[in-house]
Amino acid sequence: MTEFRLLATDGLARRGILTTAHGPIQTPAFMPVGTQATVKGMLPEQVAATGAEIILGNTYHLMLRPGPDIVAGLGGLHHFMNWPGPILTDSGGFQVMSLAGLRKLEESGVTFRSHLDGSSHHLTPERSIAIQHQLDADITMCFDECTPWPATETQAALSMRLSMRWARRCREAFINRPGYGLFGIVQGSIYPMLREESADSLLREGFDGYAVGGLAVGEGQELMLKTLDATVPMLPTNKPRYLMGVGRPSDIVRAVARGIDMFDCVMPTRSGRTGQGFTRRGTINLRNARHAADPRPLAQDCHCPACRSHSRAYLHHLFKAQEMLGPILLTWHNLTHFQDLMAGLRAAITEGQLATFIANFERDEGEGDIETAPNLAPDIAINLDASHV
Amino acid sequence: MTEFRLLATDGLARRGILTTAHGPIQTPAFMPVGTQATVKGMLPEQVAATGAEIILGNTYHLMLRPGPDIVAGLGGLHHFMNWPGPILTDSGGFQVMSLAGLRKLEESGVTFRSHLDGSSHHLTPERSIAIQHQLDADITMCFDECTPWPATETQAALSMRLSMRWARRCREAFINRPGYGLFGIVQGSIYPMLREESADSLLREGFDGYAVGGLAVGEGQELMLKTLDATVPMLPTNKPRYLMGVGRPSDIVRAVARGIDMFDCVMPTRSGRTGQGFTRRGTINLRNARHAADPRPLAQDCHCPACRSHSRAYLHHLFKAQEMLGPILLTWHNLTHFQDLMAGLRAAITEGQLATFIANFERDEGEGDIETAPNLAPDIAINLDASHV
Repeated sequence: MTEFRLLATDGLARRGILTTAHGPIQTPAFMPVGTQATVKGMLPEQVAATGAEIILGNTYHLMLRPGPDIVAGLGGLHHFMNWPGPILTDSGGFQVMSLAGLRKLEESGVTFRSHLDGSSHHLTPERSIAIQHQLDADITMCFDECTPWPATETQAALSMRLSMRWARRCREAFINRPGYGLFGIVQGSIYPMLREESADSLLREGFDGYAVGGLAVGEGQELMLKTLDATVPMLPTNKPRYLMGVGRPSDIVRAVARGIDMFDCVMPTRSGRTGQGFTRRGTINLRNARHAADPRPLAQDCHCPACRSHSRAYLHHLFKAQEMLGPILLTWHNLTHFQDLMAGLRAAITEGQLATFIANFERDEGEGDIETAPNLAPDIAINLDASHV
Repeated sequence: MTEFRLLATDGLARRGILTTAHGPIQTPAFMPVGTQATVKGMLPEQVAATGAEIILGNTYHLMLRPGPDIVAGLGGLHHFMNWPGPILTDSGGFQVMSLAGLRKLEESGVTFRSHLDGSSHHLTPERSIAIQHQLDADITMCFDECTPWPATETQAALSMRLSMRWARRCREAFINRPGYGLFGIVQGSIYPMLREESADSLLREGFDGYAVGGLAVGEGQELMLKTLDATVPMLPTNKPRYLMGVGRPSDIVRAVARGIDMFDCVMPTRSGRTGQGFTRRGTINLRNARHAADPRPLAQDCHCPACRSHSRAYLHHLFKAQEMLGPILLTWHNLTHFQDLMAGLRAAITEGQLATFIANFERDEGEGDIETAPNLAPDIAINLDASHV
C-alpha cells in the first residue's frame, strides 16, 4: 500500500503527495528513466539534485542483466544503484514487445528471446511481479500488453481483455507491504468504450494507482489528449494517475491540466545525449554552428551546472568533439528543465493559477530561441565560477 | 615567470610549490589530461575534488577544434572550460607526430594534415607559442620534436639539436608575464651525452622549468629510470622538473625519488574508460566476471564516489551494460587514486620518510588484489548513502 493525499486542485489538475517505503513524491511528478540501474550519464546524487524524487527502472533490462538475483543479493535496486529514494519499475511488458526477438504471446504470458544474447525467457504476470519484488520496487506495475498502434477496435479489445486478466493475476501475486504499491494499467487504445471497460475492470480489483497505457505510441498529441479526456474521469480521485512514457513538455502540461499526476519519459536523457536541449523557448540543437562562438548559457534562467558554468559555445564544442561531458551536461540540464517544469506546475495548481501558467508556457514556446546574442557584453556571458578551487 | 619554491628534500626527491597566474601547485604534482578542453567524463569541479590543482591541455587538438580564436574570444581556456586553476599546455609537437597525416618536417616547423578533416596546417615554434598564449596557458611548453623510439645516436642528436634551435625561437617568441612560465624540454633519447648537451643548451637560454621529453615512448621503465639518473642532476635545483607523459604509479614513485616534480598521463582517465581500476594492490579489471556479485568497493580505503557509494558488482554491471556511468565513476576513482599517491609522496618527502613510503608502496603492489570477499558481512559492503535525498 502506498498512500496518496490530495493537497489542492485547479480544474481537473491535482497537486498531491504519494508516500512510499522510500519517501514521499510531490505530484505532479516526472520520473527520469534509469533503464539499466542508472540514469544514463548521471550520478544518483546529481539526479536528486535536479529535483527528481522518484526514478523508473526497467524490469526487462534488469532481469536480463545483471539479473534479479544479483540485484536482490546486493540489497535491492536502491542499494545496488545507490538511489535511496522511491523507485517505480515497469513490468517488462513494453520492452518484451519493442526489443525482444521471437515473441510468443499466450494466455500464460510471453516467451521471448533476449535482445542481448538470444537466450529464451518466459515472462508471466506472476514472474514480473516476483522480479519487481526482488528489485524492491516501491511501485510495481502490472504486467500487460501495450496495445500496438494502430489497432482496430477488435484488436484493441482482445489485447485489453488479456491485460485485464493478467492484471487480476498480478493483483493476486503481489505481496502487500506498507509503502509498496501496485498500479493497474488502463488499456483500450483510442476507444472510449474499451477504456471504460478497462477502468471498470481494474477498479473492481482495486489498485494503489492507475496508469494510462498504450498512449504516446504514435497516435499524436490530439488523439492522446482526447483519450485522456475520456479516460481520466473514470479513474478514482483518491489514487495517483500515471501517464506512461510521456512526454514532451507540452504533452506534460496538457496532461496535468487533464488530471494526470505522474509521468516518465526517456526524452530529457536521450535528447541530452544527442545535443538537443530543452528550454522554455523550445528545443535547441547545440550541434548547430550558430552556437560555435556564443558566450551565452543554453538557458539564461536555468540553475543547472551546464547553464551556470558553461557557454553554448563550450557545449557546442563538446558535442562536435564527441566528448562525454556534452551528454553529461545536457542530460543534467534537460532533467533540471523537466523538474523545474513540474515544480512550476505544482506551484501553479496550489495557487489556482494553472491557466496563467499554461498561457505563459505556450507563449514562451511559441517565441522560440533568441538566435543571436543581442550583444556580447560580459553580463550576459557566463561568469567563471572560481569557487571550486 | 612562474615561481618555484623548494619546501623540503628527501634524498633527490623534492617537495615544492609552483606559483602561477591561476594559483599555486603543490609538487610533486600529477596533471590530469584535458585533451579537448575537458578531462574526459568529468566536470571540472569533480577534477578539482580529486585533489588535482593543474590540468594539461593540448595545443594540437585545440588549434584544430574549436580553434584558438574561439577559445580566446571566450576568455581563454580557463574560462572556456570553467577550470579556474592553473593549466599547462603541450606544444602540439607530440600530436603532430603521433596523430596528424602527411607530415613534412623542416627547419621552420612542421606542415601536416589534420586528422579530423585533412586540412593543411603549418606549426612553427612561434605559432605554437602564440596559440598557447591565446589559450592563456599558465605554463607554455616549447615546441619540439619528440624523438621517436628507437633512435640511433646520430638520429637522436639531429632531432635534439633541431629541438634546441626551436627552443631558442620559443624563448624569443614567448611574451613574459607575471605568473606565466615557459618550460624547455630536454631531448636526446637514451644517450647521456646528448641529454647533457640538450640540458646545457636549454640552461643557456634560461627557462621557468625543465621537462624531460622523449621518454615513456617504448623504451621500458629500466631505460627510462637510467636516463633520468643521467639527466636530472644536470637540471637546476631551483626550477621545477617535469617528466612528460608518465605514467604508471610505479613510474611516478621512482621518478619522484629521482627528483622529478611534475607528471602528466592519460592512464588514469583512459584506463577508467576501459574498466581498469588502479588500487594500492595493483590494477583491477572490473569487466572480470569475478566482480559480478561482489559487494565490496573497488578500494576499501578510497574516498572517491565510486568506492564510497558503489560496489564492484555495480561497477561491473555498468561496464558490461556499456553505461556511461561506468567510465565516469572509474575515471573519478583513478584520478583520485593518482592524486592520493601524489599527496602521500609529498607528505613522505616532507617527513623524510620517502624510503619507507616506497617500500610500503612496493609491498602493496606486490600483494595484489584480494580476489574473493572473505565474507559478505554488511560491514565490508558499501553502505547506502541516504544523505542526498
